[in-house]
Amino acid sequence: MNLIDGKAIAGRINEETGRKVALMKKHGITPGLAVVLVGEDPPSVAYVRNKDRISQQLGLYSRRIELDQSTTQKELLAVVDRLNADPDVHGILVQSPPPPQIDESEIVKALNPAKDVDGLHPLNVAKLAMGDPTALVPCTPLGCQKLLVESGITIEGKHAVILGRSMLVGKSLALLLMRKGQHGDATVTVAHSRSLNLTKILLSADIIISAIGKAGYLRGEQVREGAVVLDVGTSRVEDPSTRSGYRLAGDVAFDEVAAKAQAITPVPGGVGPMTIAMLMVNTVAACQNQTGFSV
Amino acid sequence: MNLIDGKAIAGRINEETGRKVALMKKHGITPGLAVVLVGEDPPSVAYVRNKDRISQQLGLYSRRIELDQSTTQKELLAVVDRLNADPDVHGILVQSPPPPQIDESEIVKALNPAKDVDGLHPLNVAKLAMGDPTALVPCTPLGCQKLLVESGITIEGKHAVILGRSMLVGKSLALLLMRKGQHGDATVTVAHSRSLNLTKILLSADIIISAIGKAGYLRGEQVREGAVVLDVGTSRVEDPSTRSGYRLAGDVAFDEVAAKAQAITPVPGGVGPMTIAMLMVNTVAACQNQTGFSV
Repeated sequence: MNLIDGKAIAGRINEETGRKVALMKKHGITPGLAVVLVGEDPPSVAYVRNKDRISQQLGLYSRRIELDQSTTQKELLAVVDRLNADPDVHGILVQSPPPPQIDESEIVKALNPAKDVDGLHPLNVAKLAMGDPTALVPCTPLGCQKLLVESGITIEGKHAVILGRSMLVGKSLALLLMRKGQHGDATVTVAHSRSLNLTKILLSADIIISAIGKAGYLRGEQVREGAVVLDVGTSRVEDPSTRSGYRLAGDVAFDEVAAKAQAITPVPGGVGPMTIAMLMVNTVAACQNQTGFSV
Repeated sequence: MNLIDGKAIAGRINEETGRKVALMKKHGITPGLAVVLVGEDPPSVAYVRNKDRISQQLGLYSRRIELDQSTTQKELLAVVDRLNADPDVHGILVQSPPPPQIDESEIVKALNPAKDVDGLHPLNVAKLAMGDPTALVPCTPLGCQKLLVESGITIEGKHAVILGRSMLVGKSLALLLMRKGQHGDATVTVAHSRSLNLTKILLSADIIISAIGKAGYLRGEQVREGAVVLDVGTSRVEDPSTRSGYRLAGDVAFDEVAAKAQAITPVPGGVGPMTIAMLMVNTVAACQNQTGFSV
């Protein structure tokens, strides 16, 4: 069994991004990322800090915009409009989930699609669905694909079974892996909470990617010998032995599945670090598209 | 084995559409469909005539616009703009394929998404991908779903394997069948020309929909006893016994597969008639959305 070290792979990708950014800066171009946080949801605060920290480490121009919990839809739209128009900002991310008074899908639609580094604007969704290589693709699916590629795992022609059908992960990953061409061309199955005979389907998978958020859901008996397993799930489970009283758990019953898998990601340290690394990659790509300068 | 009679089912749907149209007309609203044909490609000429004939039969306002083979992109865009602005036209369809000087994807993007009864405008693609029930969905996938429903075949939870990954059929149908809720909630696999171990995957299918356009491709040994098989493929194969010298053939080796299937569509007379019936359904729905009048 090969443990796929997402942290190490993300580290290498970040280094490469840092080198690109340094080269772009020599030509007077600094990729800029704006992250907008509304309210004080503790995990969101942590995510936003992390994104800010890494973008600064890689030399990007990073703008963190923290808005009050009571921010209105109109106020947030005004912030988005300003960022859309700001030439120093090439990528915009509005941290999810926003407070309940915010209509998130309207905010996403208001983004300049060229700056939509989360890949959730309808025009980017449509591009991905239509197989257009200029789509900005959501970071987690992109990170899953990259993990497979960097681990030397062939995607083309293989049967990938994806658990979960969110746009943010499951469906986007399905469209990405079935896209024609290199690192695509997979046979893709999307399964979910309503799927019958799931074990039978999982046993035919060469690659399983689980993104349902149920701790320990995928069991060893559902995975065939030699499959590759990526675990996107992160649930908080109580753990009195930790300082915080909980720990992060993946969807995969790790020990059981690891005993059968050819390769597997841990949680934490698997897909997670890749998501932020791909956000940086998307921001640099968005900057290159907007400035017409590529390295 | 149950032969799914697409012609009869389409006939019933058309009758229902006709009743709706009659009722709308009593309230002064006539759903209007414009079909634009560029050039004289014989199958396209036949399709357009057919669409025109059926929309007239059902009482829709039908406008057939036939443009010269040498029509430029600019001229076609001007036609689309006029139709977008025309309040008598609720649905617009530009017959595919256009001549080579036309950039089809630009034409589709120029359509008013609310009038895009073919469901190929990026905003409709995105809506379908995001599971938005207000999406206008391409007619052939919609027809496949309807055939299953009308034949009393449960979709929810079942494993549907789709052969082919075009936006027009395969991918749209995948997104449609995996959508949350009634007549969705399937486990969906998309397979294609690059898929390995296809037979094994097909044998796990409860429902197979083939849309690859290779005559007789799907063999009996690839279908499990009791599966449901929809055949979207239409290829012309030479047949000296016919007047035209050819006949239409589906993707399915019919006799072999029919011997195992619980239910199966023939070619012709299966999915084909449903496509036009769903075009009429989409046009009426588009009219209802645009006028705010629904029956």
